[in-house]
Amino acid sequence: MWIRYGSVTDVTMDQIVSLCRRRGFVFPSSEIYGGLSSTYDYGHYGVLMKNEIRQAWLRAMVQERDDIVALDSAVILNPAVWEASGHVAGFTDPLVDCRTCKLRFRADKLEDSQCGKRPSKKPGEDAQCDLTEARQFNLMFQTQVGALEGASSTAFLRPETAQGIFINFKNVLQLARRKPPFGIAQTGKSFRNEITPGNFLFRVREFEQMEMEFFVPPADAPKWHEYWIEQRLDWHLGLGLRREMVRVRPHEAEELSHYSSATSDIEYLYPIGWQELEGVANRGDYDLTQHTKSSGTKLEFVGQDGERYVPYVIEPAVSIERIFVALLCDAYHEEVVGERERTVLRLSPRVAPVKAAVLPLISKDTGMATHARNLFEELRKRFSVEHDDSGQIGRRYRRQDEIGTPWAFTIDEQTLEDETVTVRDRDSLAQERIPISGVASWLSAALEQPWSPPAAA
Amino acid sequence: MWIRYGSVTDVTMDQIVSLCRRRGFVFPSSEIYGGLSSTYDYGHYGVLMKNEIRQAWLRAMVQERDDIVALDSAVILNPAVWEASGHVAGFTDPLVDCRTCKLRFRADKLEDSQCGKRPSKKPGEDAQCDLTEARQFNLMFQTQVGALEGASSTAFLRPETAQGIFINFKNVLQLARRKPPFGIAQTGKSFRNEITPGNFLFRVREFEQMEMEFFVPPADAPKWHEYWIEQRLDWHLGLGLRREMVRVRPHEAEELSHYSSATSDIEYLYPIGWQELEGVANRGDYDLTQHTKSSGTKLEFVGQDGERYVPYVIEPAVSIERIFVALLCDAYHEEVVGERERTVLRLSPRVAPVKAAVLPLISKDTGMATHARNLFEELRKRFSVEHDDSGQIGRRYRRQDEIGTPWAFTIDEQTLEDETVTVRDRDSLAQERIPISGVASWLSAALEQPWSPPAAA
Repeated sequence: MWIRYGSVTDVTMDQIVSLCRRRGFVFPSSEIYGGLSSTYDYGHYGVLMKNEIRQAWLRAMVQERDDIVALDSAVILNPAVWEASGHVAGFTDPLVDCRTCKLRFRADKLEDSQCGKRPSKKPGEDAQCDLTEARQFNLMFQTQVGALEGASSTAFLRPETAQGIFINFKNVLQLARRKPPFGIAQTGKSFRNEITPGNFLFRVREFEQMEMEFFVPPADAPKWHEYWIEQRLDWHLGLGLRREMVRVRPHEAEELSHYSSATSDIEYLYPIGWQELEGVANRGDYDLTQHTKSSGTKLEFVGQDGERYVPYVIEPAVSIERIFVALLCDAYHEEVVGERERTVLRLSPRVAPVKAAVLPLISKDTGMATHARNLFEELRKRFSVEHDDSGQIGRRYRRQDEIGTPWAFTIDEQTLEDETVTVRDRDSLAQERIPISGVASWLSAALEQPWSPPAAA
Repeated sequence: MWIRYGSVTDVTMDQIVSLCRRRGFVFPSSEIYGGLSSTYDYGHYGVLMKNEIRQAWLRAMVQERDDIVALDSAVILNPAVWEASGHVAGFTDPLVDCRTCKLRFRADKLEDSQCGKRPSKKPGEDAQCDLTEARQFNLMFQTQVGALEGASSTAFLRPETAQGIFINFKNVLQLARRKPPFGIAQTGKSFRNEITPGNFLFRVREFEQMEMEFFVPPADAPKWHEYWIEQRLDWHLGLGLRREMVRVRPHEAEELSHYSSATSDIEYLYPIGWQELEGVANRGDYDLTQHTKSSGTKLEFVGQDGERYVPYVIEPAVSIERIFVALLCDAYHEEVVGERERTVLRLSPRVAPVKAAVLPLISKDTGMATHARNLFEELRKRFSVEHDDSGQIGRRYRRQDEIGTPWAFTIDEQTLEDETVTVRDRDSLAQERIPISGVASWLSAALEQPWSPPAAA
């Protein structure tokens, strides 16, 4: 069943973590207090890049479509929502305690676990643990809403944004004058009290989901499922991921979630192996039926001709974090250019945190400094750009290469004579001269060009 | 001390709530389960408009400046952060219980409270309550991180994004090669377990903050405080708020937060009166000093010449919700045009959820339908636009007026003859003809024009 495309990547997660820390994409959270496991803060370039990913998703899912509307539901919903959805009863991991070291492990992931006091000697050998029976542990964070514990009610931080969509199905159906097929899209943070988080941003306690629930006539669900797998695969490739690093893998029957009749994962070949990048599930009528039962509000479509059914739901669901890591892994290259080593992120211009750098060749030259400053002021009204006048020009280029800036505009002596600048291309290293007055439209046009990753050197 | 500009607004909060519900800007959350008090979900137009507000803030605070970088820190930080910041001890409201009705009230807001069993007859009269002594109630939501309550640790949902910035001060100072004055900006959700929430989006349990901490040499703090009050006031006016509806009010000494040596509120004249739109505080060195003491990491600036100090912090802090409500209140008008009534949102094109509508005059006419469709497909690649072919043209205009769409492009019989369309202006109702091939650039230019609210009719 698996469709294999890729070869093994030679980028390590450590290289990505190190770059992220070094250039301020991502910091371990609460670092001055010893951190908080599996929690991260995003620095300047991380924020800019996440914004580009989110905007690209919203553009493809909402702005460029007729049939999908946006929603932004609350993190803390009425707790009855999570009873109805099955999360209170079933959103659990089985946990065991080790009587020797007192650590806690996931019963279904014991092969990855080690007793803290008596670790096994060989990889693959069983943990030398004296384990308790497995107990179910719910992954939802609980909190109390209201004044005091006695008088207040237990509520949950949402573990997925999808339920906020289902409970608004009727609102959207009525107000947005929609009928199936139509979709509701939402981005926002979800929270899971993971017991075995890890692998950098890969399994974190809070993450930003981008989910779209697409409501269709039941008979059309398989067709739409295939449609959305294709659409989402194309979208990821459009962000610049190399084709051979991405594959589609249908879930085996025993892998399926309780609500799903079919799921395919779009997987990326991360440094830790093939892993889910995005899941595209056929949730059937499970959720709307559950909420109809629990709330007493009929969540169904009634046509003008009396046609009446509970739509099936196709759900493409992804987190910004997994896209972020895939893009960085895919773009990361260490190479030798001339006699110099460089680290370069070959990011698609669309997702690069900075689109262009403006560099006066000799920063102490008043003419160059003024030209550079004016060009920068003009560009930053429309684009994310940087001005850098510190250090040798080669060093400035390498700083930009490392954060994936596609182009640099350099102001040099010739600029003062003929009002042209050089454009340096991050990937080809080619330089051409263009008029300084045409830089903004050159950049605008360059950003609209389709982009694909350059072939390996 | 108060600078009064405005007159009393004649829009009611009920009108705003009703419009938001009717057109899908905002829904009461978890409505099919009876709701959850003071929690709201945003529908399509609400999401689009919030995105515009957030983008405008990021553009002004990060993209167009040299001296501010972006950050996105976690919601759940190491709990030591909130000990150090003073929130565990001091982020409280004083509460009293009524022995008669068992309801709970804020001791400092008793004038707004009513005994549930024996309400007072006249407005302003004391609540007929038999009240307990006041007790302090912490407004931070608590949760447990880790596997089981015994083995896990109590953590808090952040009540402000600012602390996530302070604990990353050193990271940014080092990595972004900055020295004061410089700022760190962040948008994101914060959570407060408010006891007396209410007034629509005005006091809600989860809200999206936009905060910027600007680090300056201590002696320059008063100057920068004034600077940021001016900057932020200009920014709000640039979004289209009427000048007479906004004022600046310096806090009296007894109003100041424990960390603040001076705060000015930028206030808007909401239907419920003058209220904080944005606060601009001088936090002094309180936060960096507290985190230095608690973490052992020195959060200070050390210059190359050995200069050394703990920067003061100027903080402009606002929530998207308060801007959102102010913009809607400011833009809302009911008026009679010719013989017809209309509700119109005179929003600045910059924040309007939909920038333009494409309307085929006669939707069954194949030529008009095709022209309209092609124009729509072209525009939506770059702009948030709508295509509407259902119902009479007047009704379609009124639908767009009600959501604040600044322009409508109508395809009519003349379009088929000379390839022009009419542009209808939401505010002036003027119509002009322009070539259909020039619509995209017309719209692009129109969106870059400065905008101010039209004078009242």
